[in-house]
Amino acid sequence: MQIKTIGIVGLGLMGGSLSLALKQTSNDFYFIGLDHNDAHCEQALSLGLVDELVYTLDEIKSCDVIFLSIPVDGIIAVAQELHSLNPYCTVIDLGSTKEKISLSIPKDIRSNFVTAHPMTGTEKFGPTAAVSHLYKDQTVVLCNMELSGKHQQATAKKLFENLDMNLVYMDAKEHDRHAAFISHMPHALSYALANSVMEQEDSENIVALAAGGFKDMSRIAKSSPDMWEDIFRQNKKNLLEAIYSFENELKKCRHMVENEEWHTLNAWMENANTLHDILD
Amino acid sequence: MQIKTIGIVGLGLMGGSLSLALKQTSNDFYFIGLDHNDAHCEQALSLGLVDELVYTLDEIKSCDVIFLSIPVDGIIAVAQELHSLNPYCTVIDLGSTKEKISLSIPKDIRSNFVTAHPMTGTEKFGPTAAVSHLYKDQTVVLCNMELSGKHQQATAKKLFENLDMNLVYMDAKEHDRHAAFISHMPHALSYALANSVMEQEDSENIVALAAGGFKDMSRIAKSSPDMWEDIFRQNKKNLLEAIYSFENELKKCRHMVENEEWHTLNAWMENANTLHDILD
Repeated sequence: MQIKTIGIVGLGLMGGSLSLALKQTSNDFYFIGLDHNDAHCEQALSLGLVDELVYTLDEIKSCDVIFLSIPVDGIIAVAQELHSLNPYCTVIDLGSTKEKISLSIPKDIRSNFVTAHPMTGTEKFGPTAAVSHLYKDQTVVLCNMELSGKHQQATAKKLFENLDMNLVYMDAKEHDRHAAFISHMPHALSYALANSVMEQEDSENIVALAAGGFKDMSRIAKSSPDMWEDIFRQNKKNLLEAIYSFENELKKCRHMVENEEWHTLNAWMENANTLHDILD
Repeated sequence: MQIKTIGIVGLGLMGGSLSLALKQTSNDFYFIGLDHNDAHCEQALSLGLVDELVYTLDEIKSCDVIFLSIPVDGIIAVAQELHSLNPYCTVIDLGSTKEKISLSIPKDIRSNFVTAHPMTGTEKFGPTAAVSHLYKDQTVVLCNMELSGKHQQATAKKLFENLDMNLVYMDAKEHDRHAAFISHMPHALSYALANSVMEQEDSENIVALAAGGFKDMSRIAKSSPDMWEDIFRQNKKNLLEAIYSFENELKKCRHMVENEEWHTLNAWMENANTLHDILD
């Protein structure tokens, strides 16, 4: 079945970049956009991210493919309203958490859904942040694919492969634990780093000295609070486990400095160096 | 007085990049290099970072300017051996800590010294990491300048200005506290983040999902343990204060998640966002 119409619910960084990227893979797509923010709707249209705007979910239900690129609590809310879908309609959510979303999808449309997490993004948000290269060569995690229909599995795979993404399959539970360590907890650290510097009375003089290391570590502290509040809520248990694990490591470091165990500290740093044997 | 010979003690990222950058500001400099690592000496010569190698401090003492681009404990050790300097010799150390170094310089050569901290670097090290643009448009903190001779002050200012650096003057004590927050503590976080992910039994699968945020936050966990052990030792008190401050912020975040205080969490994240009003 040929894909003709693609609905994008949420015209921000992820949805807007997706449309720009998909346009580069085919001239045949017609993009229909929906967003509760009127200004974002107008921006998305004038930036050419979508061909047409609609204002209700009902108007988007006839699309061949519908992407949900909205905050994770919004995905759950929208899923409850998407009843009576055409059996060939494919709904792909791009949320950063997967277990609660997967469990929340009503049974009658569960096979329409593919729950995906593209491991990409920037700290920017809104339609003006959209860039066509956001997805290229990045990983997308596809969760609980056995619950998606055969047609929907094939459609999602084809679209993500056409975007030159690296497809990884995983149970939603496993995904959420991994994502807590590799993404959600690091966001908590970045926010905490920014706040700990800003509460110093001479914070402006301190920040004036910032070089690459600090800039890199505080970059994602610029991320959207509304989006991340939802993610932290949905992945609470795993996030807390990851924060505890980090706190434990940092406490080790602090104790070694307090007790002047320099040799052990050096070995601890050397162990951290080896991350890059598997990361790079 | 015309600068002709520039000695570089420590032919790694900082020293090598300095020589590459200074070469672009004048054709008149002759660079003499010294490093206790024989392989680095040969690399520095073959990469054209220096014109000549010497093997003892005595042989470098006749230079017009001597840069000390070695780990901070090494700077203190070398300072003790640099007696009987020509009154017009300028020694500039580039260490990341300043108070202990400033206090350690023997009185008879204190006016020869300028204690500087260029707020730049990468996670790479050794002569092959040297790049000519490392210093351009970056900040250099010059500490306790009133203890340096007039000639030495003028020489250091001129050289750093010629490198298109942004000069900032500060008391060494104040520098060390600021550097703890903006650089030293963030290094501890990055090492701790790397180690907390690596101690998970499925660390390879977790790391396979790494995107930009995690890569940025773990980049400086690749930094040299020998260099950072020295920095942590010399700036122990301020580092611990900065770590405690960070731990306190992260604990706030954890408590808000544990107690499901989402509204307060959102405001805490929004406060972190405002860092970028003063940083960017």
